[in-house]
Amino acid sequence: MRISELARETGVPVATVKYYLREGLVPPGERHEVNQARYDERHVRRLRLVRALIGVAGLSIAQVREVVAAVDDPDLALHDLLGEVQNAVAGSGPTEPDGRIVSARAEVDAFLAGLGWKLRPDAPTRDRLATVVTSIRSMTGDEDPLDQLFGEHAGIASKLATLEIGWMPGSEAGRDELAESVVIGVSLFGEAFAALRLLAEEDASARRYGTG
Amino acid sequence: MRISELARETGVPVATVKYYLREGLVPPGERHEVNQARYDERHVRRLRLVRALIGVAGLSIAQVREVVAAVDDPDLALHDLLGEVQNAVAGSGPTEPDGRIVSARAEVDAFLAGLGWKLRPDAPTRDRLATVVTSIRSMTGDEDPLDQLFGEHAGIASKLATLEIGWMPGSEAGRDELAESVVIGVSLFGEAFAALRLLAEEDASARRYGTG
Repeated sequence: MRISELARETGVPVATVKYYLREGLVPPGERHEVNQARYDERHVRRLRLVRALIGVAGLSIAQVREVVAAVDDPDLALHDLLGEVQNAVAGSGPTEPDGRIVSARAEVDAFLAGLGWKLRPDAPTRDRLATVVTSIRSMTGDEDPLDQLFGEHAGIASKLATLEIGWMPGSEAGRDELAESVVIGVSLFGEAFAALRLLAEEDASARRYGTG
Repeated sequence: MRISELARETGVPVATVKYYLREGLVPPGERHEVNQARYDERHVRRLRLVRALIGVAGLSIAQVREVVAAVDDPDLALHDLLGEVQNAVAGSGPTEPDGRIVSARAEVDAFLAGLGWKLRPDAPTRDRLATVVTSIRSMTGDEDPLDQLFGEHAGIASKLATLEIGWMPGSEAGRDELAESVVIGVSLFGEAFAALRLLAEEDASARRYGTG
């Protein structure tokens, strides 16, 4: 297809498609005639991924370039690719964890090991959880062990994650499509669940404290 | 207690306590001698609430003033107070919903009515959910009815909310303390759950797509 059809198919304006091509986020089309390139389904899928990374997850061009390099790296296993996309979309944790967070981090690692989840030892989300544990303790003075504080939350998170990962296409889908579904899953379904949680809290609060 | 003891008890510096007093976020102490005021447990609780609203939830002084006015309003029922605190902490939805969101909003209202949750008809979170529904549909082309798309998510959100509201003190606690626990619940436990969800997704992804 021509660039105008590629634009129509993906809903991305021609000028923007050209910009992504210049920035190397989308591979060049096949040269067909002088000054005319042809595009195919691979370009459609890549453009959809780039659109999700920029429009939904808010990544910079440099960050998108890293993600598409990972998608195109044949030596990177699918599971690791999806982990990199998740990290890029979710953002990293604190850049310089202070002393109290380092101490909570050891506790977080022990708690997660106890859950038996398959996790990379260096996931930045571990520091994020350690940071919030430190804040909760400083605000509440609560020194309960983590399995008491978060054990049930972890079980609920696991149910949600199983549902969310189950919504994704199978591994027979291409890497672009799977990466795009991670973006939508982490960002949009994350935002949807956050809204449902607030509404459910209002309901639970009405049941506990009455509606006046 | 003197202002220096109030500062020590709450971990808020004296200069900051004085600033909050000038801004009317904390009521004045009882005048004891010339140039000396005395503070009590009510001031400790109020200062804890203000610290949480500013330090944890990131509210402005003007927003905090609105929240404390609601705490002090004897005509505002407890459940409605907690709803106002939740709205202040969670932020509002889109300010000018566009046409597509307005149409999704009717669907969201019908979906929520079907869940049987006790909700205010005007909760801004309804627009937030309508906005994300619109984005998911535009990204995926999925036109499934909401109970199919989010029915299980809603059941999981309800379990989480029941757990979170159960963590709060009972209604015999003061309004300041209950409002503070909403701040911690919405912000910090929300952030903790978001981190647990990302970790659980990594685990579910490993089980589905292998660890390479």
